[in-house]
Amino acid sequence: MTPSNEDELTQAALQRLDGAPDPRFAQIMRSLITHLHAFVREVDLRPEEWMAGIEFLTATGQTCTDKRQEFILLSDTLGASMMVVMLDQLRASGRGGPPGRPDGRSVTPATEATVQGPYYWAGAPELPCGADIAPGTPGEPTFYSGRVTDTQGQPLAGALLDIWSGDGEGVYDMQVEGAGMSARARIRTDAEGRYWFWSIKPSYYPVPVDGPVGRMLAGIRHHPNRPGHIHMMVSAPAHAPVTTHLFVAGTPYIDSDVVYGVRPSLIVAFEPHPAGRAPDGRVMDQPYWSAHYDFHLQPTAA
Amino acid sequence: MTPSNEDELTQAALQRLDGAPDPRFAQIMRSLITHLHAFVREVDLRPEEWMAGIEFLTATGQTCTDKRQEFILLSDTLGASMMVVMLDQLRASGRGGPPGRPDGRSVTPATEATVQGPYYWAGAPELPCGADIAPGTPGEPTFYSGRVTDTQGQPLAGALLDIWSGDGEGVYDMQVEGAGMSARARIRTDAEGRYWFWSIKPSYYPVPVDGPVGRMLAGIRHHPNRPGHIHMMVSAPAHAPVTTHLFVAGTPYIDSDVVYGVRPSLIVAFEPHPAGRAPDGRVMDQPYWSAHYDFHLQPTAA
Repeated sequence: MTPSNEDELTQAALQRLDGAPDPRFAQIMRSLITHLHAFVREVDLRPEEWMAGIEFLTATGQTCTDKRQEFILLSDTLGASMMVVMLDQLRASGRGGPPGRPDGRSVTPATEATVQGPYYWAGAPELPCGADIAPGTPGEPTFYSGRVTDTQGQPLAGALLDIWSGDGEGVYDMQVEGAGMSARARIRTDAEGRYWFWSIKPSYYPVPVDGPVGRMLAGIRHHPNRPGHIHMMVSAPAHAPVTTHLFVAGTPYIDSDVVYGVRPSLIVAFEPHPAGRAPDGRVMDQPYWSAHYDFHLQPTAA
Repeated sequence: MTPSNEDELTQAALQRLDGAPDPRFAQIMRSLITHLHAFVREVDLRPEEWMAGIEFLTATGQTCTDKRQEFILLSDTLGASMMVVMLDQLRASGRGGPPGRPDGRSVTPATEATVQGPYYWAGAPELPCGADIAPGTPGEPTFYSGRVTDTQGQPLAGALLDIWSGDGEGVYDMQVEGAGMSARARIRTDAEGRYWFWSIKPSYYPVPVDGPVGRMLAGIRHHPNRPGHIHMMVSAPAHAPVTTHLFVAGTPYIDSDVVYGVRPSLIVAFEPHPAGRAPDGRVMDQPYWSAHYDFHLQPTAA
């Protein structure tokens, strides 16, 4: 079939998918082509604009290295990553339901997820509860504590928290050439589902702006900043894991996160304390902060 | 504003465009974000599928070199490039209209455009009518001739044809490491708007399949071939230029061009001839082909 106008062109592109053996791939491609063609027609995309788009996407791919993923950043700043996160959690909550409770009703909703971001680094050191996971890292010391429970409120012993953040000036270890891990750890909850550790109070920071995404943000006059947050990937056997952040209440940009990652349920008040004995017995010779947060994991169907 | 569900996320991403000073950029981004979010929701895109998409796009950018543009190939094989070409010509025909003829009626429609493709190389040699533009290039010799007129049928003297093609085995000079130009020339019409030159009869050929686009085509089980064609960029002062091909009638894949470039009006019968005296007086010691085609350019508004 040789298309002779725009409608026929879209039809020809969709018909071509009839040969795809994987129905899910065909479904994704069908929706992609439908929306791509509709976008081009809706804005009556000019050849020079199309070429600018080609060059933008090419530069985005070529800006990626083993430590920088500009396409994820593009997806993040367009809100696509957060959309995928929201949909995934919706789907997981539909799948779940506590074993032995046929009503499936939860006492408390599962902790909300947010974007993983580009700075996850697998294999952080396993440290005991109470450890300082950021020794020597610039920033104001903070005592983090809370519990991990299921959505019925039952504590989960041995749940794993994989934790990472930038430092108190908003810089991640991965952004420093040749630097090792810092402000990262894996910590397990105790028999009562409790966790506690020391790190720093994270700062807001800009995403990288020296690449194509930075040019796009400049084009819409939006700042490139993320509000201060600490990342947690929380998991336990037979429960849906959650990848999320805790955001510092009152941090700059909390209402305009460049990657749309903020959810009200993830904003935590950081309480100031003078120097002295901390809740875990550690004696602090300087003022410090504390942040308390309980995580709730959705049981998966047996 | 902190979005708490998928609808609010899309709204937040659209609101962010209110700060864009360039209304056209805002318009394009608004449509892009609307369709991107709708696509993600419509297929309920899974995190692992999203990641596969990120990796695909990254690899597409990283496959590009100064001689290979994988993102254009992706756009071509999704039908997006041809959509842009069709819309551009629609727009040009709306703008045009022959000076001095208020009814704006054309005797003949403007020659249809098609994709430029990745093998255009600016600065081809200027040769006189009658030249062999592909000496030593593998392939069966072909005599190309015709006229360039406006859409009222008036011949256009000194119109420029910028011509390029692969060889008779489907290989472009640019694909051969270190090769110079071949089967390329710029030729001008004579005082009666006529052009004629010798080249080869082009063959069908596959687009490059060793990159991400090749994997996509394999995923939908579509062949990677383009039917045999010769490219022409035809221009004259005060007329809308046209970038197009002539397709060889009966060439393989004429009904399933991988980049959707075929338009029925661009298919040309190649006539076989025995060895002997050709129409321009050249004596051929082997059989040859001839292809005749008249181009029609739309006058631009004064």
